[in-house]
This record gives sequence, structure tokens and C-alpha cells, in this order.
Amino acid sequence: MKIDVAASPLLTDLYQLTMLQAYLDNRMEDTAVFEFYVRRLPAQRNFLVAAGLESALEFLSSMKFSREDMEYVASTGRFKKNVLDYLENFRFCGQVHALPEGMVFFPGEPVMRVTAPLPAAQLVESRIINILQLHIMIASKAARCRLAAGEATLLVDFGLRRAHGAEAGMAAARSSYICGFAGSSTVAAEQLYGIPAYGTMAHSFVEAHSGEEDAFMDFARSNPGNVTLLIDTYDSLRGAEKTVRVAEKLAAEGIRVRAVRLDSGDLLELSKCVRQILDNGGFPGIGIFVSGDMDEYSIRDLLSAGAPINGFGVGTKMDTSADAPYLECAYKLMEYAGTPRFKKSKGKATVPGRKQVFRSFEGGLFRGDVIGLEHEELAGERLLKEYMRDGKIIAQPPSLKDIAKRAAEQMRSLPESLKLLEAAAAYPVSLSAALVELQRRAELLLDQKSAR
Amino acid sequence: MKIDVAASPLLTDLYQLTMLQAYLDNRMEDTAVFEFYVRRLPAQRNFLVAAGLESALEFLSSMKFSREDMEYVASTGRFKKNVLDYLENFRFCGQVHALPEGMVFFPGEPVMRVTAPLPAAQLVESRIINILQLHIMIASKAARCRLAAGEATLLVDFGLRRAHGAEAGMAAARSSYICGFAGSSTVAAEQLYGIPAYGTMAHSFVEAHSGEEDAFMDFARSNPGNVTLLIDTYDSLRGAEKTVRVAEKLAAEGIRVRAVRLDSGDLLELSKCVRQILDNGGFPGIGIFVSGDMDEYSIRDLLSAGAPINGFGVGTKMDTSADAPYLECAYKLMEYAGTPRFKKSKGKATVPGRKQVFRSFEGGLFRGDVIGLEHEELAGERLLKEYMRDGKIIAQPPSLKDIAKRAAEQMRSLPESLKLLEAAAAYPVSLSAALVELQRRAELLLDQKSAR
Repeated sequence: MKIDVAASPLLTDLYQLTMLQAYLDNRMEDTAVFEFYVRRLPAQRNFLVAAGLESALEFLSSMKFSREDMEYVASTGRFKKNVLDYLENFRFCGQVHALPEGMVFFPGEPVMRVTAPLPAAQLVESRIINILQLHIMIASKAARCRLAAGEATLLVDFGLRRAHGAEAGMAAARSSYICGFAGSSTVAAEQLYGIPAYGTMAHSFVEAHSGEEDAFMDFARSNPGNVTLLIDTYDSLRGAEKTVRVAEKLAAEGIRVRAVRLDSGDLLELSKCVRQILDNGGFPGIGIFVSGDMDEYSIRDLLSAGAPINGFGVGTKMDTSADAPYLECAYKLMEYAGTPRFKKSKGKATVPGRKQVFRSFEGGLFRGDVIGLEHEELAGERLLKEYMRDGKIIAQPPSLKDIAKRAAEQMRSLPESLKLLEAAAAYPVSLSAALVELQRRAELLLDQKSAR
Repeated sequence: MKIDVAASPLLTDLYQLTMLQAYLDNRMEDTAVFEFYVRRLPAQRNFLVAAGLESALEFLSSMKFSREDMEYVASTGRFKKNVLDYLENFRFCGQVHALPEGMVFFPGEPVMRVTAPLPAAQLVESRIINILQLHIMIASKAARCRLAAGEATLLVDFGLRRAHGAEAGMAAARSSYICGFAGSSTVAAEQLYGIPAYGTMAHSFVEAHSGEEDAFMDFARSNPGNVTLLIDTYDSLRGAEKTVRVAEKLAAEGIRVRAVRLDSGDLLELSKCVRQILDNGGFPGIGIFVSGDMDEYSIRDLLSAGAPINGFGVGTKMDTSADAPYLECAYKLMEYAGTPRFKKSKGKATVPGRKQVFRSFEGGLFRGDVIGLEHEELAGERLLKEYMRDGKIIAQPPSLKDIAKRAAEQMRSLPESLKLLEAAAAYPVSLSAALVELQRRAELLLDQKSAR
């Protein structure tokens, strides 16, 4: 069977369906409110960046059980007719509030709030978490790379091959682009999202030729508008010398060598030597681009040590968010049938209620956030916006360029300490008095419930 | 535009296309041999398990540029007519040798060898790496969980929500199943692969009810064949007491409670207390299933401390391979136009030639591997088999059950030291004399080349 799993409503956990059976049997179809949030920051993060909303909304608005899906569900023998009828006619009909993509957020703050009849709001949980975690994780890592690189250095996503599958590769291209990368090596990201594609040559290209200079000349003549030469296949310094000779020949043909790429070795030393060889050879305009094991730490270390590097290809460590390859995130029931709900599980307790985040500024910088209730009137900017009503997306999604602009503004508004790559004192996030009171009342209610 | 990115030939790096332009312009269409292998083991691995072959073969055999793809490629203005014609007519026409899925392997050993005209063998690189790394990484992690759990303990994949997107979630279900997991919570993995689906209830189910006992009764009556009760929403011990009361009532209705699930707290202490409550209540047959932050280390620690746990839901840390979220793997040119090829890049040098792996046994256990040349006659089992010829898959893929059987046999054949979760002395892998000689000659050749 060939199906696009990424669009399948059955890309979910079995318990969503077993719970559905019980909800329908017991007519538990009142309105439920779930919120997606991150419980704790990974050790090496001072903030997170919202991303993946467009993909989540697309999933919700197009979610539909096909004939094949229904045949499979029926064939399992696990479910009664009420579940089969429900799924066959299912269209997500709820309301979604969320942080705009590109917005900085902190632990405990709702990133997305889903309001819908309980069976529907529950059914979408697994894939919503699966999508949002992925995009947020990579956007947050990419933002750190951009902070480390400063605004002038070229950053390009090179990570498709080590990303965890197709969707992760695409999400990496998109999430890094909205957090300040210039583009991605992933061609499908240009095709589908309009993200500029970057790329040069592989070592195999050099190896397949009888010599490096032949390889460089062939490549440049075939791709005259995009000449970056990979010079570390055999010996980076000799590769730089050959670049000078090749650049002279190519100049005579009207072709400009834009850059060389280094992918191995001591990149600080090599970049300095290569810079000198290129300068002495009369090519101060040929840039130096490096790749191989790059992340925010190596970018910072190389640049602060004075490496004359003009751009970085950031791959594996960003696309896998290698130092924090998952987020402690959750999609939790906050209200059902008008009553606040929460769990007390050790280390995983929730704060009930329909929440909004209020952010205050001082001198253009974030000063502190208050998590309050939806209808409270508190000081500060209300961060959650409505994106979907009755299952319909209510506004065109912003362009990736506009999201990138927002993310760049957010970076400029970060307090300096949060821009550091190491863990800083936590950004102040507090609960409003009304939310604290709601939590207290819910605990009282719980003591009655749990007696039952 | 809606496309299934996982099946797209443009899910690749731009340099595959810029190199293609140069290969076609220069008629470099002789036969190339590329090998996929892992350079080094992650710090916490003693072996890796081959996986993902079926998916890679499917990609190769169905790879095709659609009209939309061709329109996009043409629209970029980067490529000449020869590239457009080549892509429009492209079907992968090469030969593939590989390790069978479920086979244990070690660094430097080819997992897949692709033999095809250079433009084709190069073009498929990015996605081949993207697929194989993902599956191998998770299969290898799952095998460690199975080693830690012993053969009798139930293991279930619970990781979809934290996997990096749709394909990663599906790969986790499949790769863990072939390495000894009983099933997965991911419904689509049952639908598409026939992997048994497991699942119970979420905390929200309990919270949405007016009390825990009501929730348990509702769930059991709606899912009488699948009653596992989640007991940690408010207080695990009280949850266990309620389980006894509920199990008595349900027994009268002919419904059996199979297990309780714990998802938080001190699982060693809680599992012991819960066991006692269930036993004292007259239900020694109700199992204890735990989840939440599980991996091979916590499984080992809990079981070796005597926790009376019957099964584990293993999620986030396996599905993201959290302690090793990427592999240092590569797909490298080993031969072109009959000549061995290699690169010397620092720390990333390759060994040229078309290789085969020969494995010797002693007392039923792996004794050592020799990497030799394809046509050598060396002692030991030849591990690489032919899977594709002229672009056609030449044998039906084995069933997942058969792959799981092979992986289980491989685990039994592992030397004891490699079964440990901590790093052991490296398994002996050597190069054959003929391969060493080939490498020496290739180096000589290189010295002539790099002079050019």
C-alpha cells in the first residue's frame, strides 16, 4: 500500500482510538481545551522559538479518514460502529490559538491551544506534538547559530542527509530559514517553500576526475554562476593554490570563482592560510565557506578566534538538534465541560485553565512574561492569536520572509544574557493571580474527586 | 503544492544537480561504485544493526521526476538541456549489494554498495544516507533495549510524538519491531507494516472524568479486550487501590484487567508497592507496565534492582536515539571507470575498492570480520548480498518477522562483551591483504594526480 504517511490521520497512537471508543460510548463530547507547551528548557537553551504552526494547521484542516483507512480500522475488530461512523465523517471542527511562528517563548507558556469537542481535541494530540516539537527544536537551534554568527555571516542548512527522514529534512530547511539562515542545500525546500538552494560539489566529484584542477575547471564551466570549489579532498593548502591558478584561467573566460569550501581539518589554521594564499594570489574576493560538524559553538569559537570565514554550512548538529534532540513538551487537557482540569503526576503536574501570555518590554527588550487566563486584562502584549475557527484557517499564513523578519526582531529584543550560548538565569515568567487562584480551586476539587 | 516529499527525487542536495551538469557536459558516465558505511561508533555503542534497506530499495526503484519536478528544475535557470533531458528520462538502473536488514555490523564495513553510471550513483546519495542512517540508528538503539530487558519482558515503541516527524515515527516503529519489540503505539505502523498496535489511555482521559474509578470503568467497558489502566494521574498508590476495586467489579462483568501503567515518579519503589497492592487485592495476574523517559539504561537499572515490571513503553529516547542522535556515516566513491578512488581529508579518509565483508564464528559467536575485495575468496560468511540489478529489485523483501528472527539470532551470536551497554573493547575488524595493497597503489596514484 502506498500512502503519504505525513498526511495520514492514522499517524497517531492507538490510545487516541481506544479513548475515542469510551468517549463516544459515554457521550463525553463537551468542549475540551488542550494546550501544547514545553515543560522545561533543555540544559543548553535560554529560549525557544515557535515554529511549525503552518504545518500543524494544514494537518488539522485536511485531516480525513480515507476508504483504505476505514477498511483498516474496521478490520482490526477493536472498535464499534459508533467509532467507525465518527471517523468516517470526521473533519476537525475546533478552534486554534497559537503563538505566531518566529516568536520567542519560554517553559510553561502555551504555544498552541486547541478548543474542540473532547473526542476531536484528543484525537489530534499525537501528530500535533510530533509536528510542533520538530519545528520548534530546530528553529531554536538555528536561532542560536545565527546569534553566534552575527548578522553578516552567511549560514546555510546542509543537514538533509543526517536529518531523521524526509519530514525532518524539510522542517530543518524551513525552520532554519525563518531563524536567519540564507537558504538550504535541500532542493525540495526551494521547490516547495521558495527557500534559496545552495550547493557546490562533493569529494566524489574531485575523486572521479583525473586531477583536482580538471575537476575545478569542469565544474566552473558547467556551473559558471555558482562556483564554489571544494579544496580539502587531498590537501587543503594545495587545493587553495590550485584555486588561484584555476581562478586566473576562469577569469579569462569571464567566470568568477566565488568561494572555496573547507570540510575537514583545523579550520581556524586552514582558513587563515587559505585566506593568505588567495589574497597573495590576487583573489581577495574569493570567500571562504566551511562545513563539517558545525554548530553554534564551533561558529562562535572560530569567529571569535579571528578565522577569516565568510560562511558556514551547518548540517548534522542542527538538523538533529544534537545537543537537545527532543523537548520535554506536552499537549495537556486544561479544561473540560467548563471545569478546569489538571494532573498531579510527579514532575509532570499541569496548570489548568485557558491561558494567554502577556509580555512586557523595557527599552525595546523583553522584560518578563505573565501567564494569565484568556480573558484577563493584564499589561503587556497578548502573544497567542486565533488561527483557526470551526476547523477553518482564518488567515493566510504569513510568508516565510515575514516570519524570518519577526524572528530577527525577536532576537534583537532578547535580553543580552539570553543571547549567550550557555545557560543564563531564567527569564522571568510568572502566573497571574487569577491563574494561581484557579489552580488552588482545582486542587480542592481534585481532593473531592480523587476520593472517588 | 501538495507532494509526498518522502517519495520526491528532489529531496536531495543541490550539489547533486550541479555535479550532474558537469558530469553530463564532460561525458563522465562510466561505472561508479559508492559505498555507504559508518566511520565510527557513537561513544555508547558496541555494534550497529543494519536496517532501512527495504525503504532505500523502494526509493531507488520508484525514483522518477514528475512533470511538476521538471517544471521546477527548468524554472531555476541553473541547468542546461542535457540535464533536463537526463532527469526527465531518469530511472535508476544500477546494482545494489547490501547487508540484510537485522544484521549486526561494525565501523568501516559497507552496509550498501551502489554500482551504476556515475551520474546516477551520485544523484541518489543524499536520500540513501537520509534513509539508512535513520533506520540503523533506531534499530541499534532498540537492540540495546532488548538486550537490557532480556527476552521475556514486553517492549513497546511509544515514541511517535517525539520522533522527528512522520517518517521518523514510522521508521522507529519498524526498526524497533525488527530488533525485538512486540509492537508500537503507532497505528499507521499496524496499518502499513502489520506491526501489532499497543495502547491504553492518556491522563486527559482520567482528568475528563469526574473520578478515576469512573474513568477506569468506562474505559474497560468500551475496550474489554484491552484493559490497561493508567494509575498515576493523581496518586499512583491510590490508583492501584482503585484498580483492585475496579478489577473486582469488572470480573463480575467478565472483563479482565490486564495491566496498570505507571508513567511518573520513583518507578522502582512504586512498582514494588503497586505489585503488593495488586497481589494483596487478589490480582497477581494484573501486570505492571511502565513508561516515561525509558531507555536501555533505565530498563537495566530497574530490572536489576528487582522492580516487578512486566513491560516497558520506550519512547522519546529510542525514537530520537537521544544519546547518539546521528551517525558518522558516509556514502563515498570507491571506484570510477575501473580505477579505485579515495579521499585523504583529515579524519575522513576512505579505503577504496569494491568491498565484501567476511565474518568468522567460533562456538556460534562472532569471532572477527575481515573487509576484503568483492571477488576475494576468504574464510567466513560473505555478508553483502545482491538486492538490485539493472534497477530492479531481484527478490521479495523478507517479512518483518523474518528480519526480527535474524536480528534475534544476531544478538545471540554477539560476544558477551559487546552486549554490555557501556563501551567495550572494539570487535576485531581488519582489512584483507589485497585491500591493503589496493589502498597502497591508490595512494601512489594519488601522489601523481595531486601533482596536477
